[in-house]
Amino acid sequence: MSGEFDLIARIRARAAAAARNDVRLGIGDDAAILCVPVGHDLIVSTDTLNAGVHFPHDTAAFDIGWKTLAVNLSDLAAMAAQPAWCTLNLTLPDADAVWLDGFLDGFFALATRHGVALIGGDTTRGPLAITVTVHGFVPHGEALRRDGARVGDAVWVSGTLGDAAAGLRQWREGSAMDATLRVRLDRPTPRVELGLALRGIAHAGIDVSDGLLADLKHVLEASAVGGELDLASLPTSPSLLEGFDESTRQRFQLGGGDDYELCFTAPLSRADDVRAAAARAGVAVTCIGRIVDECGLRLRGRDGSLVAAPALGYRHFSGADEGEHDPGEGEKDAS
Amino acid sequence: MSGEFDLIARIRARAAAAARNDVRLGIGDDAAILCVPVGHDLIVSTDTLNAGVHFPHDTAAFDIGWKTLAVNLSDLAAMAAQPAWCTLNLTLPDADAVWLDGFLDGFFALATRHGVALIGGDTTRGPLAITVTVHGFVPHGEALRRDGARVGDAVWVSGTLGDAAAGLRQWREGSAMDATLRVRLDRPTPRVELGLALRGIAHAGIDVSDGLLADLKHVLEASAVGGELDLASLPTSPSLLEGFDESTRQRFQLGGGDDYELCFTAPLSRADDVRAAAARAGVAVTCIGRIVDECGLRLRGRDGSLVAAPALGYRHFSGADEGEHDPGEGEKDAS
Repeated sequence: MSGEFDLIARIRARAAAAARNDVRLGIGDDAAILCVPVGHDLIVSTDTLNAGVHFPHDTAAFDIGWKTLAVNLSDLAAMAAQPAWCTLNLTLPDADAVWLDGFLDGFFALATRHGVALIGGDTTRGPLAITVTVHGFVPHGEALRRDGARVGDAVWVSGTLGDAAAGLRQWREGSAMDATLRVRLDRPTPRVELGLALRGIAHAGIDVSDGLLADLKHVLEASAVGGELDLASLPTSPSLLEGFDESTRQRFQLGGGDDYELCFTAPLSRADDVRAAAARAGVAVTCIGRIVDECGLRLRGRDGSLVAAPALGYRHFSGADEGEHDPGEGEKDAS
Repeated sequence: MSGEFDLIARIRARAAAAARNDVRLGIGDDAAILCVPVGHDLIVSTDTLNAGVHFPHDTAAFDIGWKTLAVNLSDLAAMAAQPAWCTLNLTLPDADAVWLDGFLDGFFALATRHGVALIGGDTTRGPLAITVTVHGFVPHGEALRRDGARVGDAVWVSGTLGDAAAGLRQWREGSAMDATLRVRLDRPTPRVELGLALRGIAHAGIDVSDGLLADLKHVLEASAVGGELDLASLPTSPSLLEGFDESTRQRFQLGGGDDYELCFTAPLSRADDVRAAAARAGVAVTCIGRIVDECGLRLRGRDGSLVAAPALGYRHFSGADEGEHDPGEGEKDAS
């Protein structure tokens, strides 16, 4: 791409400001040279965001930069990993330095918050797309996996659910957007501190990227257990409560993706430890159900009786309406 | 994407067949859990290939799969790293299982050859683009870097130069393509074994992805030294020799990218060790110049006199003619 070297120089300058001791060689060679601390496992995840699919074309550059890193850090959080490094592959339609600076502002605002060093990447020409690959550490054997849920565990979720889907709905309808919902859609907060605080307490974890039902099902299937959710317990933000009727709220909360909250299980007996960990991490957590022996996922209404799951699923931003698809058809990363 | 889960299932099935002991958890969770061997540095590199930019739209799926991994493994080779793991981010315009199977055939043909495990990734919808991130190991401190060249070193290159650019020229002209040149363009051979064999012998290394002059200049600048190239020494394939006049050959050899040969420097006194290493790796190497004190890169003709560098540069496949651009404007990865 014409001007690509200027773009790379801009990226390098920003990356150099966030050096880490465990980066022996960062951007500028054929590859980076890195040191994983002794006694730790390396945790790796990667996600691609495509314009018009994962975010509307008119999303602010800052928000795209933030969100691209956030969705990746959210995967590390779900593994209880300490973030360390990332690579950034930017495919841009043209060499637009103003756009790039905005993107980097958002990207590094979040990277700096979590001490993440940018250690490599690639810039190419094409329709706007961004791939980030993140690396983190966990003391050997302490990663939080999807397959650790046990019968008798409580099911917890952080923060509130459905906000991003509600924000997306408002954006689609062209109506005035609630500022809180907009931030939840455009600048999700990866629950890194919570993931770390849950080491040794939680049995299983996943981040809510495709929708609570779809993501919790991944945990149940990986752990070969069943689950029950109490619909009345789903944590609801004031913005969601004020702006949408109960049926719509529930669809967003069960099927809306892009919240990037953590859903995790922990023994009932550790409820106080879970709350203390959440307090240390500065985020609310809510017990929303339990792990049971009978396979499958059941929903219980306000009176405790079983209720049918609404038709759900989530395609992020894709031109299709949210909440109308089979969860099996949704966007789902492979790692 | 509709059918994305089928695609992921196809990818997972292929990945499962190539397990490694150091992969504690591969595809299927929020992130992979990996073990870096004690006493080793982790080497990470990433490259994106976009349809219509890095390969013609009609490139066979097998070749795209092969090449996407090959260009990444070439970066590991240039660092003298032993490949271990990779992630694969596939952006596809539609869920085409036949195309995907062809792509995976090419990808895993090369992955299997080098014992590389696919440990994660992402499939998204959009214009065809592929990002691969590769991970490898080097005993602590033994990575081959760009900044290690010293005055008195000989400059070496593996294989032959200019073949991929010649193949691209034939493709562009719509003329009958020499089969050897076509393979060199579509299925480059990463010089992994050579990189490993050069540990402890070579001082600096880089892979020839943007063109010999551009890439060697990166080494000279990183090492704060100068270099001289003997034009008569540039290794030339029979196909290149037969198909193109001397001036065109030279442009391809100096400015043509995509050869993915290794260019490296080693002390003159280690020439026999270099040749022995190359023999062990099963690839020819040619001494093409030397590292000198005076900064900059000079070319010497057949009689030893200085000659001017032709206008060069390379944009891979980009619609623009090869060999016409300032090298500073070429495609160049940032890590």
